[in-house]
Amino acid sequence: MFKDRNEKKTDIASLGEFGLIDHLTKEIVHRQPTTVKGVGDDTAVIDAGEKYLLVTKDLLLEGIHFDLTYYPLQHLGYKAISVNLSDICAMNGTPHQVVVGIALSSRFPLEAVEELYRGMYAACEKYNVDLVGGDTTSSVQGLVLSVTALGMVDKDKVVYRSGASENDLLCVSGDLGGAYAGLLVLEREKAVFKANPEMQPDLEGHDYILERQLKPDARLDIVRLLADIGVKPTSMIDISDGLASEIKHLCKHSDTGCAVYEEKIPIDQATYDTARSFKMDPTTYTMNGGEDYELLFTIRPDDFEKVKNLAEVTVIGHMSEKNEGIRLITRSGPVVPIEAQGWDHLKRKSD
Amino acid sequence: MFKDRNEKKTDIASLGEFGLIDHLTKEIVHRQPTTVKGVGDDTAVIDAGEKYLLVTKDLLLEGIHFDLTYYPLQHLGYKAISVNLSDICAMNGTPHQVVVGIALSSRFPLEAVEELYRGMYAACEKYNVDLVGGDTTSSVQGLVLSVTALGMVDKDKVVYRSGASENDLLCVSGDLGGAYAGLLVLEREKAVFKANPEMQPDLEGHDYILERQLKPDARLDIVRLLADIGVKPTSMIDISDGLASEIKHLCKHSDTGCAVYEEKIPIDQATYDTARSFKMDPTTYTMNGGEDYELLFTIRPDDFEKVKNLAEVTVIGHMSEKNEGIRLITRSGPVVPIEAQGWDHLKRKSD
Repeated sequence: MFKDRNEKKTDIASLGEFGLIDHLTKEIVHRQPTTVKGVGDDTAVIDAGEKYLLVTKDLLLEGIHFDLTYYPLQHLGYKAISVNLSDICAMNGTPHQVVVGIALSSRFPLEAVEELYRGMYAACEKYNVDLVGGDTTSSVQGLVLSVTALGMVDKDKVVYRSGASENDLLCVSGDLGGAYAGLLVLEREKAVFKANPEMQPDLEGHDYILERQLKPDARLDIVRLLADIGVKPTSMIDISDGLASEIKHLCKHSDTGCAVYEEKIPIDQATYDTARSFKMDPTTYTMNGGEDYELLFTIRPDDFEKVKNLAEVTVIGHMSEKNEGIRLITRSGPVVPIEAQGWDHLKRKSD
Repeated sequence: MFKDRNEKKTDIASLGEFGLIDHLTKEIVHRQPTTVKGVGDDTAVIDAGEKYLLVTKDLLLEGIHFDLTYYPLQHLGYKAISVNLSDICAMNGTPHQVVVGIALSSRFPLEAVEELYRGMYAACEKYNVDLVGGDTTSSVQGLVLSVTALGMVDKDKVVYRSGASENDLLCVSGDLGGAYAGLLVLEREKAVFKANPEMQPDLEGHDYILERQLKPDARLDIVRLLADIGVKPTSMIDISDGLASEIKHLCKHSDTGCAVYEEKIPIDQATYDTARSFKMDPTTYTMNGGEDYELLFTIRPDDFEKVKNLAEVTVIGHMSEKNEGIRLITRSGPVVPIEAQGWDHLKRKSD
C-alpha cells in the first residue's frame, strides 16, 4: 500500500533455482576470517579452530516437497533430518547437531507433531546426532520444515565439489533412480485413491523403492568406509537432484569434462521393473530422478584397487578435459551429451 | 490415504508455543560430547574447541510474522537477519555467519527477491556478518524466510538465562514498547487504506516507532559496551515476546523471583504518545508489546556503579527469592504479579 509496485517484473522461474542463487549471491562479500567457503557447495565451511564446521540447511514445504496424502509424518521427520545430514556427508564430514524449525497450521493436532518428532528423533539416534534447538510457530496453511545441520571435519579431510582432475574416476554409492520410482508408484496409487476412495492402495512388492522415496538415508557409512580404506575423494556431492545434475555440478566446479558409462550406472531390479511397468527408460530414472541421496565422488586413478571390490561403490566413469564435454556413453554405443533435467523446485509448480 | 487418522486429536493451541516445545523436547537425549546447551536458551551452545559456537534459527512466515501490505521487503530482509543476531547477542556472543532459506510463490518477481536480499546484505554489512549459504525454493502460497545465525563466544564469557541470583540488578537496554506502537499505527493505516484505497497513509511523525517495528537492530553495541566496562551479565535474554514474558523466562531458568519498578521502565515519548492516542496504558506496551529486541539482563549488585551512568542501560528492578514471586511495583503504589501476555505465535491466529 505504501509504494507503487508497478515496476519491472522478471519471472523467477525464468532463472531456475541455480540461476537465481547465482544471481543473488554473485556480489557476496565475506568479511569474517573464519568463513572458509560460502554459497556454492553442499555446505558452508567455517573455521572453528582445530576443525572445520560444516553448516547446511533445507526448507521443506508441504505441497512442494512432500504430499501428506501418502507421506507418513514419522517418515517425513526422518527424511527432513537425513537429507540435511547427507549434505554434511558430501563434504566428507560427520554430522553432530541439528536445529529444527517447524511451522504448522491449526489442522495439525499435537499427535501429528509428536509423530513428526518421533521420526526426527529416530534419525538423530541412527546418526548419533543431537537435536539442539529450533523454532515452532504457526502457518496460515500447511506444514513447513526447516532443518539446519551442523557437522565437523578435519581440515585436511574436507572434500569440495571443485577438486576433481582429468582421469579421476567417477564413483557412486548404492543404486540410483529408486526414490523416483517410489514417487511414481505413490502418485499412481494416489490418483487411484482419489478416483475411488474405497480402493486400497496397491503397494505390495514395492517396499524397496517406497523406502527409497519415503525414508532415505544419509550415506555416513560410505564416508566412514572410505576413511577406513584410506581413500580421500578428490571431489564429492550428494545426489539430491539426479545424477545428471550433480555430475554437471562436479564438472563445473572442477573445470573438467566427464565420461559416464550407461551400463555401469547401478540400478536396483525393483527400480528397473517399475520403470518398465511405466513404459519408461530406466536410465531416465537414474539420470534425472531426484532424491536418491547417494554420494557421487571422484577418486584418484591409483585408488581404484581400493574401491573396486566394494559392494556399495560403483565406478561409473572418469573425468576428462573440459572441452571433451560431459558425455554419456550409452549401452548401445552412441555418445550423447548429458543434460540435467533435475529436480528444480522453482520449476515444478509450472510442470 | 494410507492409514486411519481418526485418532486422538489434541489442539496445539491449548499448549501454547512454550508448552509445545517443552512437551516435544522433554525426553531429548544428547549424545554428542560437543553439545553444551540444547533447547531452552536463546541459542544452542556447541563446543567448537577453543570457543563456544552459538546457533539459533527463526522461521518467519507471511501472514503470521509479517504483512507485506505495509512491510517493505528490504526492511523485512534486514529484520530477518537482525532478529537472529539478537539471539546471539543475548548469549553475550558475537555473530559471524548467517544461512538463509527462502520459499516464495510465483507472485514474487525477481525484483522483489532482490529487494529482500538488499536488506539482508545491509544487515550483514552493519553487523560484519557473512551470508554463507542457504536454500531457495518455491512455496504454494506466500513468503517463508528461515534464517540460521552462527556466532562465537569465549567459553568464560557465555551468558545463559539461568545465572541470575537474588539481589542481582535487572537491566534493560534502550527503550521498550516502540515496536508494538509502530505495529498498531501500521495496522490502523492499513484499515484506513482498505476502507478507502485513495487515502494516503498518515505515517508522519511516527518515524521512530515505525523503525522500531520495521527495522529493529540487534544490540551488539550493548554486548561490546558491557565487555568494555568489564561487566559480565549473570543472565541475559533478548526481548522478542515482551518484557513480562522474558522476565518470567529469566526467573524460571534462574529459579528466582523478581521485583520490577514500573516508573523505571524506559519508554520513548513517541511510544508513550501513541499509547495515549490509542487510549491504552503505555505500560501495557512496554510489558507485553513484542519485538523490541532489546537485551534484558542481570548484573551483580556491585557492578551498579559501572552501569548507572550508561545512557543505553536502565536498571528496572532486582531479582529476589523465588517465593516472593515476580512482581511489578506500580507507579501508584500497589504491587501486582507480572503476567506474560506476550507474543505467542501459536495463539495469534485465534485472536
